Order: sequence, then C-alpha cells, then structure tokens
Amino acid sequence: MTRLVVLWESPGDPVAFERHYREVHIPLARAMPGLRRYTVGWDPSPIVGEPYHAVAELDFDDRESLRAAFASPEGRATAADANAITADLGAARRAMVFEVEEV
Amino acid sequence: MTRLVVLWESPGDPVAFERHYREVHIPLARAMPGLRRYTVGWDPSPIVGEPYHAVAELDFDDRESLRAAFASPEGRATAADANAITADLGAARRAMVFEVEEV
Repeated sequence: MTRLVVLWESPGDPVAFERHYREVHIPLARAMPGLRRYTVGWDPSPIVGEPYHAVAELDFDDRESLRAAFASPEGRATAADANAITADLGAARRAMVFEVEEV
Repeated sequence: MTRLVVLWESPGDPVAFERHYREVHIPLARAMPGLRRYTVGWDPSPIVGEPYHAVAELDFDDRESLRAAFASPEGRATAADANAITADLGAARRAMVFEVEEV
C-alpha cells in the first residue's frame, strides 16, 4: 500500500481551517479515483517536539494508483485546494509518499 | 483508534540507523502490550517540502491503552531506545498522538 501523508502546520485561524478542510477539501479528495482510505488526526498531542496541527493520510493500492489519482481532474482540484489552503489560510504543510511496511 | 506517529529526521548514518531500528527498536516496540499495528514508511518521496527519513505509526485501541503500553517495562525500554537513537545515531524526531478519524 502506498500512503500520502500531509502534515499541516498551525493555521492562522484554526476554525476557518477546519471548516474549509471539512466542507471543501475532504469532498474534493474523496472524489479521487483509487483512494482506498482517508483519515485525519486533528490537533495531535505532543510527545516529542512540536506537534503538527493536523495529520492527513491518504492510502492507495500502489504508486501508480496515486499518480493516476492526482493526474485526474479530481486530483488536480484537490492539489489546487491544498495550495489554496496554504496560501489563503496560512497553513504551511509538508507532504510525502511512502510504501507502508508492516513491521 | 489512537495513533502515535514518530517522524524521524535524517540520521547521520542511514545504514546504522536502519540496522539498529530493525534489529533493536522494532522488537522492543512490538513487545509492548496493547499494540495493534505498527508500520514504517522508509525514505519517503518528497511531495511538498522536505520529507522525513522514516515515518513510524503505532496504533492502539485508545489513549488509555497507549498510556498503559508506555508505562509498561516494554514501553519504557522502547522510549529509552528511541532517545538513544536520537542521542547516539543523530536522528532527531517529532512524535505526536491523535485519534484516527475516517473522513
């Protein structure tokens, strides 16, 4: 399984961030072809260092399915909306992709 | 479900890091009572910003199970080993806990 993790830093306005994320971003992302599972961890508790504001995880069967998802119109709209959240709501993010290995 | 995410920064010696992680850290962590699932993403590909070196995810039924796991001798040994990895292998980390919400 291939996982995209998006680590959201604290936004300027957490209430506006969560409203936009729930009302706009989740429906866009859920429409992507090939998305198997989509979870969000809100407002994590710190254990070591500073926590992120939200941790989003999007699972696909493999890299090719992820690539196809983000090449689709729905995927392009999702990526554009993530960029808009960063630009307009002041929520920086780091995002990365890896294979999930059960250990 | 309650998830502990550990985001490992690049270690000084990635080969020594992975060897220690696989041979020492994983067996310690897997011995913790109440651990439901443990996955690692090695060497993620960057999408936005710098990727971490490894993303470890440890799942428990709830916060109380996680708390009990890390209060156990196995949990204390796991946390001590994570601190040793950071101190001795130069791999800084951020760690946080959240409820996994399916969206």
